[in-house]
Amino acid sequence: MASFKDSIREISENQDSNLVLALDIIDEDRMRLSSRALQILEQVSPYICALKLNRPLILKLCIETGIKDILKRAHDLGLATIMDAKLNDIAYTNLATANQYFNAGFDALTASPFVGWEGGLDSLFREASKRGKGILLLVHMSHKGATDGYGQDVFDKLTGERRQQFIVFAEKAISWGADGAIIGATHPEKIAKALAILKGKVPIYSPGIVAQGGSPREAIRAGADYLIAGRAIYDSSDPEEAARSIRDEAISALGTS
Amino acid sequence: MASFKDSIREISENQDSNLVLALDIIDEDRMRLSSRALQILEQVSPYICALKLNRPLILKLCIETGIKDILKRAHDLGLATIMDAKLNDIAYTNLATANQYFNAGFDALTASPFVGWEGGLDSLFREASKRGKGILLLVHMSHKGATDGYGQDVFDKLTGERRQQFIVFAEKAISWGADGAIIGATHPEKIAKALAILKGKVPIYSPGIVAQGGSPREAIRAGADYLIAGRAIYDSSDPEEAARSIRDEAISALGTS
Repeated sequence: MASFKDSIREISENQDSNLVLALDIIDEDRMRLSSRALQILEQVSPYICALKLNRPLILKLCIETGIKDILKRAHDLGLATIMDAKLNDIAYTNLATANQYFNAGFDALTASPFVGWEGGLDSLFREASKRGKGILLLVHMSHKGATDGYGQDVFDKLTGERRQQFIVFAEKAISWGADGAIIGATHPEKIAKALAILKGKVPIYSPGIVAQGGSPREAIRAGADYLIAGRAIYDSSDPEEAARSIRDEAISALGTS
Repeated sequence: MASFKDSIREISENQDSNLVLALDIIDEDRMRLSSRALQILEQVSPYICALKLNRPLILKLCIETGIKDILKRAHDLGLATIMDAKLNDIAYTNLATANQYFNAGFDALTASPFVGWEGGLDSLFREASKRGKGILLLVHMSHKGATDGYGQDVFDKLTGERRQQFIVFAEKAISWGADGAIIGATHPEKIAKALAILKGKVPIYSPGIVAQGGSPREAIRAGADYLIAGRAIYDSSDPEEAARSIRDEAISALGTS
């Protein structure tokens, strides 16, 4: 059974794209939301390697009904699927949540290392590994206030050293066997710093492209393996062209990095 | 418009209970899950002041269908309703998620202060305040691994001082205007320490009762205002008796604290 890390790399090579579409659209009307989601997915599918969904879309469409169709279509188009669950609960609840996402067809999901290992993310990692599913850890988010928590310095209990929180998280991504580390494109210097730890072991996913101010080129040059873009694509008057353009910028930056 | 903090205190006085039922049940079958949820709610309703639901139940029952019935029944029984959403996303996504929970009938939801203020929880707090809904902040969770993050020491950016993470969070509960601070009953000494900051301003909710090893009596004596229990009630052969017994222990501890 291939790991998520390996399977998304293969998809990325086949698609000639390292761009993940964050389909974070909102609509009061379920049917309209569902058909718009499928329409954007079709339009941009040649230029992406994976589809990422978020909690509001899941709540609106329901995992047992509307979501399964979208995930099936994404797989038929040869794409990977990621649930941006940001799991941060006790083990019992994380597992019960994750199993519903995995059963619905998600290949990977995101989780917060802040919740800790024992009785936190331990059973989630074990379950994902057993099922060949991926866990992507939030190492540093992309919004301004992320500096409050992800950007703080912490005291290392073992060494007595003062350390950066996101560096501690990057090390957990390695020791816990994560399939990816998420670091906002709005912090390219942090991508570069985490890369020194993660390189060749855990790929870096970078959200916050364009709409939040992150530059695809800078994120790639700093060391991001995958870019995550949402509003920059689906809020564009031409989503296909927007996706192609970000993909092209990423590919060209990869060639010159 | 009464704040959530005020309305749940009034309900708690009317019900003569400060116990919150965490209805974290799981079932592959939707109809069976829904009817079991309603059955347990009816049985224990005389001994609780609020109903708390978690993410797996929402995923299974769907917010637009099964969940609304349960929330309506809880309100008809005179109880408050809390969504244990543990929101920890960017503002745009937190808001889109929270609005669906609020629209479905939840009176309050939980969020993680680790995600930070600007572009994190800022719009969520503003929206909740506008709608008279409550936000309960996770100050220290109840599982063992919670010591990794919630239990760590951090360095204050302004003063350079070394401080306890959960104390920083307790202060945020005050400055952000939270309606509650959640601190695991497995850490009564931390409840006592946070109480010094929160007393008379932000009530303390304490989960991890019985099933995770927390003692209702000790949590109340340390300063918890509300207790949250799940498995200890719904996994009991007699949920009604289990709820009554925890409620009685809490009331008796309140009388002697």
